Amino acid sequence: MSTHTISPDILDPVSAKAAVDNVLFDFLDNHRKNPGQRQLAQLVKLLEEFMVGGKRIRPILTVLGWQAAGGENDLTTVVRVAASLEMFHAFALIHDDIMDDSDTRRGRPTIHRILAGKRGDDRTERFGIGGAVLLGDLAFAWSDNLLHTAGLTPAQSAAVLPILTEMRTEVMLGQYLDLRATGELTDDVDAALTVNRYKTAKYTVERPLHIGAALAGADAPVLAACTAFALPLGEAFQLRDDLLGVYGEVRDTGKSRLDDLRAGKSTALVALALRAGDAAQRARLRTLIGDPQLDETGAEEVRAIFAATGARDAVERMIDDRYRRALGVLDTAPFTADAVTALRHLSTTATRRNS
Amino acid sequence: MSTHTISPDILDPVSAKAAVDNVLFDFLDNHRKNPGQRQLAQLVKLLEEFMVGGKRIRPILTVLGWQAAGGENDLTTVVRVAASLEMFHAFALIHDDIMDDSDTRRGRPTIHRILAGKRGDDRTERFGIGGAVLLGDLAFAWSDNLLHTAGLTPAQSAAVLPILTEMRTEVMLGQYLDLRATGELTDDVDAALTVNRYKTAKYTVERPLHIGAALAGADAPVLAACTAFALPLGEAFQLRDDLLGVYGEVRDTGKSRLDDLRAGKSTALVALALRAGDAAQRARLRTLIGDPQLDETGAEEVRAIFAATGARDAVERMIDDRYRRALGVLDTAPFTADAVTALRHLSTTATRRNS
Repeated sequence: MSTHTISPDILDPVSAKAAVDNVLFDFLDNHRKNPGQRQLAQLVKLLEEFMVGGKRIRPILTVLGWQAAGGENDLTTVVRVAASLEMFHAFALIHDDIMDDSDTRRGRPTIHRILAGKRGDDRTERFGIGGAVLLGDLAFAWSDNLLHTAGLTPAQSAAVLPILTEMRTEVMLGQYLDLRATGELTDDVDAALTVNRYKTAKYTVERPLHIGAALAGADAPVLAACTAFALPLGEAFQLRDDLLGVYGEVRDTGKSRLDDLRAGKSTALVALALRAGDAAQRARLRTLIGDPQLDETGAEEVRAIFAATGARDAVERMIDDRYRRALGVLDTAPFTADAVTALRHLSTTATRRNS
Repeated sequence: MSTHTISPDILDPVSAKAAVDNVLFDFLDNHRKNPGQRQLAQLVKLLEEFMVGGKRIRPILTVLGWQAAGGENDLTTVVRVAASLEMFHAFALIHDDIMDDSDTRRGRPTIHRILAGKRGDDRTERFGIGGAVLLGDLAFAWSDNLLHTAGLTPAQSAAVLPILTEMRTEVMLGQYLDLRATGELTDDVDAALTVNRYKTAKYTVERPLHIGAALAGADAPVLAACTAFALPLGEAFQLRDDLLGVYGEVRDTGKSRLDDLRAGKSTALVALALRAGDAAQRARLRTLIGDPQLDETGAEEVRAIFAATGARDAVERMIDDRYRRALGVLDTAPFTADAVTALRHLSTTATRRNS
């Protein structure tokens, strides 16, 4: 159990992040030192290292949702539920990296790559995948454990658990759509935005806000305002992510800016370029995107087509449009004033970030 | 929600299995028909087909544990919790098949093989693995959903959830030990039995009994008797599985009897043969076991060495010894008489089966 005191400053996102990190690392530390699980220590250590350095956007939104709905007591419960969402997110990322065959995450090799060691024979690769599947599973189980030990009242359980189930099904649906679409380049911008909505807008923004708000006993208008704010902001957040996947600096994002292109991710950016490009540009995009051997020269050619077709600028406009819509919702949302201030600030950093 | 009435005959394992199956297939049917999850329908159908034909040993043990501890009411709750364990098991099997690179399960291709289609290019293989990781994750999330909607009282939640957490961590620890040991043949019989204890004795027998008993408010002596019965029986169950993996008929087991040998599984059977064999036999075992190309001729040679070294007979004796110990525990266990009768019967079928 944590011995850290949670201060009222938690209403500041930086403090919320610190409180959640304390819960997470205490939890993992206890597991690593548990003599009955000695043989899991190596896996737990990997998970601890993996969890260093995330943005903690979901836990912060959980705390803000709770605050927006007027939550005042139960800080310990809220923080532990928020930590549970972050542990679930570790699970989702570890499995996502397997599905995308990504080599780096948060500036370090991905879990399956660490476990596989240097690219080697088939057996080593399979051990890497198997171990990463398992470590993700463990994080999933432990996110439940954090939730079960959060001290939820029966009323809180009744309000939160159905949202949690929805969130999990939605993110898996998004992953599945993403998996099916990967490598199948399309100029269907709506299809790309649908994946975006499930994988990010709902999973990353709407549901954490809902879960926090539900912990504070939010009524239907508050939950509806969370949705109205979250969906445009979440879409903007993912569109920014799509741009960073191609234009970001690895020292900022911790991810190679070749991974998304090599994997052939069907983003709105790609769909817009395919829609606006001429036959020659479309042919080049289809040759280059999804080529697992793509190098920086090829990526530069893709970026030039994104610029020439106006796709990059169009995505920037889409981000801006959604950012403004999200802010507009805050003007009339039935949220506490402090929460509105914090959400306004977060909207800006989430859409104008470089990492 | 299920419209099926649960009859008191559930105390008979055949009825328990039917009641659990009704809950599971109603649940999946509702998800497949949910318009908001239309795009998941293909995955849900795969899961439905995958779940046909299991032995349901864990749900049956959950019901028997509840009965052993004198459970009388809440049949609906018990059956739904039991169904939740079976859904969790579907998750565990789907991911296990990825880790073992198995081609068949329950007489059909494994999920990652179905999704990959015919053995094809790298991308198809990766789609198969990614989709199977995801379908396993969905089953995990839905096992939680079944649990959350089982109508547990706060006292039942408090009793059951810590056991559930232990069970999940234990099975993942067992999987990890198994994964690390696969391909590293050893004559360390104890190491093989340790994996066996986590993967099967605790996960398959002890914890389902505990969970059922905890639902009925079992006290410490009842839980201790569950453990004393479950560990030898579970070890015997797994040892039988090890033998079936090498000697079973695919028409009975639904699994190829080459898979375990090709994967190089470190079973007690293999460890005993390595310990008892002469230098030439050991060398042949190390060449043949773990060879992904092993054919039936090679497997016959392995079986001949298992016979010549006495390893096969030794495993049969270990099964018999554990079977007798489990029955001995039932003679004095503080269980209800009907439960003792059912557990005695189950002990026999679990250790003398051919599938």
